[in-house]
Amino acid sequence: MPLGFRAGAATVGIKASGKPDLMIIGIGADAPDASVAAVYTSNLMVAAPIVVSRRHLSATDAAGGGRYGWTRAVICTSGCANAATGPDGEADQETLAIALAEGLGTDPYRTVALSTGVIGTRLPAARIAPDIRRLASDGLSDVPESLAAAGRAMCTTDSRPKSACASLTLPDGHGAGVVVTVSGIAKGVGMIHPRMATMLAVVLTDAAVAPAALYDILRGVAARTWNQLTVDGDTSTNDTVFLLASGGSGATPVATGSPEAQALTAAIESVARSLARQQAADGEGATTLITCQVIGAMNDADARAVARSVVASSLVKAAVHGRDPNWGRIAAAAGNARLADAAILEAAGMSSEEAARRQGAAAVVDPLRLRIAIAGTDVFAGSPLAFDRAAVRTAMDAPELLIAVDLGSGHGTGEAFGCDLTEQYVIENAEYTT
Amino acid sequence: MPLGFRAGAATVGIKASGKPDLMIIGIGADAPDASVAAVYTSNLMVAAPIVVSRRHLSATDAAGGGRYGWTRAVICTSGCANAATGPDGEADQETLAIALAEGLGTDPYRTVALSTGVIGTRLPAARIAPDIRRLASDGLSDVPESLAAAGRAMCTTDSRPKSACASLTLPDGHGAGVVVTVSGIAKGVGMIHPRMATMLAVVLTDAAVAPAALYDILRGVAARTWNQLTVDGDTSTNDTVFLLASGGSGATPVATGSPEAQALTAAIESVARSLARQQAADGEGATTLITCQVIGAMNDADARAVARSVVASSLVKAAVHGRDPNWGRIAAAAGNARLADAAILEAAGMSSEEAARRQGAAAVVDPLRLRIAIAGTDVFAGSPLAFDRAAVRTAMDAPELLIAVDLGSGHGTGEAFGCDLTEQYVIENAEYTT
Repeated sequence: MPLGFRAGAATVGIKASGKPDLMIIGIGADAPDASVAAVYTSNLMVAAPIVVSRRHLSATDAAGGGRYGWTRAVICTSGCANAATGPDGEADQETLAIALAEGLGTDPYRTVALSTGVIGTRLPAARIAPDIRRLASDGLSDVPESLAAAGRAMCTTDSRPKSACASLTLPDGHGAGVVVTVSGIAKGVGMIHPRMATMLAVVLTDAAVAPAALYDILRGVAARTWNQLTVDGDTSTNDTVFLLASGGSGATPVATGSPEAQALTAAIESVARSLARQQAADGEGATTLITCQVIGAMNDADARAVARSVVASSLVKAAVHGRDPNWGRIAAAAGNARLADAAILEAAGMSSEEAARRQGAAAVVDPLRLRIAIAGTDVFAGSPLAFDRAAVRTAMDAPELLIAVDLGSGHGTGEAFGCDLTEQYVIENAEYTT
Repeated sequence: MPLGFRAGAATVGIKASGKPDLMIIGIGADAPDASVAAVYTSNLMVAAPIVVSRRHLSATDAAGGGRYGWTRAVICTSGCANAATGPDGEADQETLAIALAEGLGTDPYRTVALSTGVIGTRLPAARIAPDIRRLASDGLSDVPESLAAAGRAMCTTDSRPKSACASLTLPDGHGAGVVVTVSGIAKGVGMIHPRMATMLAVVLTDAAVAPAALYDILRGVAARTWNQLTVDGDTSTNDTVFLLASGGSGATPVATGSPEAQALTAAIESVARSLARQQAADGEGATTLITCQVIGAMNDADARAVARSVVASSLVKAAVHGRDPNWGRIAAAAGNARLADAAILEAAGMSSEEAARRQGAAAVVDPLRLRIAIAGTDVFAGSPLAFDRAAVRTAMDAPELLIAVDLGSGHGTGEAFGCDLTEQYVIENAEYTT
């Protein structure tokens, strides 16, 4: 647990299953506010917790437009998405924020919110408000187990919680170094497709970073990790990643573009990448984590587009499930690759003019330069290669599969994460309302 | 069979199953060339038959750039896509064209080609060339059954052939009217996603239309029909629609923008829409044809984007399979809608400047104005509605499902066609190399 944070979880009856369904991450009672940056779903059917979080963050830093600011707590309810619930849903979400603020002794706008579960049902806001007050005032702790419990309380169809941790040393301003910790938790194994932030994740660090600088770090990291994750091609109404910095480590504040910012970004990205891969591996019905790594692209945006297109292809996913080294489907998916939204292209470092021009355009793929390897075996190099099909089938039986693509056209690289498509995915999503 | 055309099919051993795998549609021996327009896949891993068809059409009308021209025959092989086969694959495809031209007594560039089947395998070109010569010289007939046989020979994983027909009356230039026929055949139930033409289709008419005018008709029709069709989100390497006009009816040539062109376009569109819906209904593993009709959009492009997003959503498709009136997934899919490629937006009538600007942009969806009805029952109108869930489940048991969406923002309308996602889709595509 990074210094300066506390967490707790409870079971308040939102889920019919009787599993934990409420979690709060707060800062120490006497600590100053944490800086916070957020990346939200691009789905226009945006859920109430996102509407409320944007409003609250804007109140703490008008320049951030709801994308960054200051906060004292994150609340997450699971079992009900509070999406497509209209103005009533927004009022419910504010009821939760008021209860949380009362429990912490702060203002509601110094809190942000997450929610996940069934779309279109109402939160039992009035009924659970006393539970929230109680957990906020008496139930938070800074022991590592409390963060793990918070991670479990976010889960819905997840078969296991996701967490990751990294540390680095930053200067303390007195000529010495202090250890800074980055810890993250995430949930989400369905309705996952790379577009802005995907699913719910909270990443905490005890480094000191101003809100706008923290946002710059987060949007770049999200472009390279969560936005390269897909389970089923559906972008949810509630996707949010919050990155909070408490400053509790005592390290000197990190300035944008400094070597310290680069080191911290690398640590945050390693946590984000691990969480995204844990989400893909636990994809609904999945048996195999698929990673597609692309080199030789005209630029990184093209490489990421091709990697995403390969791991998003239903036919590639089904072939991986059948342990079929069907490289023709990989080639076809590469040929279909489209660049991401302008906002993601900008977050990854493209100029805004070029991002506007290339949004949604085809990635540059030359069939005669394309090379494909499955689980380490070359299968295509401009034309079909002879290979030991039985040996590749056997290699595909591992719980992780690497598909390597070389576009042979430049120095751009990128990767994307996904999972196989199984009968179990269909069964889970046909038989249950989620 | 529209006047002026002949067709035939044969079994030449490309398919291991012993089913018909070669078809030829030609024009009468003494008839003039037919005008032809083509819409091809946007997949950059473009198959050899498309490379060859573009080259041949360009030779007959340089202004068309391979999109329209004049031809005497269409050849289609099934069981092998001849895609990702490199320069050898192109040579194979020309071998087929040469054999076809020899059989017909014409030049190879006065023929166009289609192919469908496994990606990455070679055509047995030399072995089947004599069969092609024989079918072209002795095996073509103008009886309706010959077109049906040609449709069956195009099929791969299709469970049944697809065909449609329409007729209209056009002037003959002597003050009288003649009956003009439009007939189409199509194949394709997997690797189908709306982007440019999808899958293989051939539409024939005995109207007289110059190549460039025929192309104008086809690209608008494709934007409203095949480009609104999705089975699994994968755009194939071979997708092609050919529209041929023989002039055999004796009707006066149809001029662009004339009332006759509008009437002919409507007839062609009715054939195209029927074929696209037959393809969706026969989607791999599908049990339900899903049609999403959208009204109240800012414009038709937005309406089509929302309709496409709904029928393409894995979660909506799985819910339909489970007969679950899960409107939250429909709302989420509407919120994710993205406009089509610039070429499709232009084909549907948008200015090229606006098409370049809006390509891939989010469709305008206001959650508070959104209304959704499933199988005729209102389920959402800005906020959730109470409805008889059991009655809607029962209505969803029909082989066709209508999802109606009203965006409440303007007068744009559009529709899209898809199918449910079933365990059988996964089994078919995991267990077999296709």
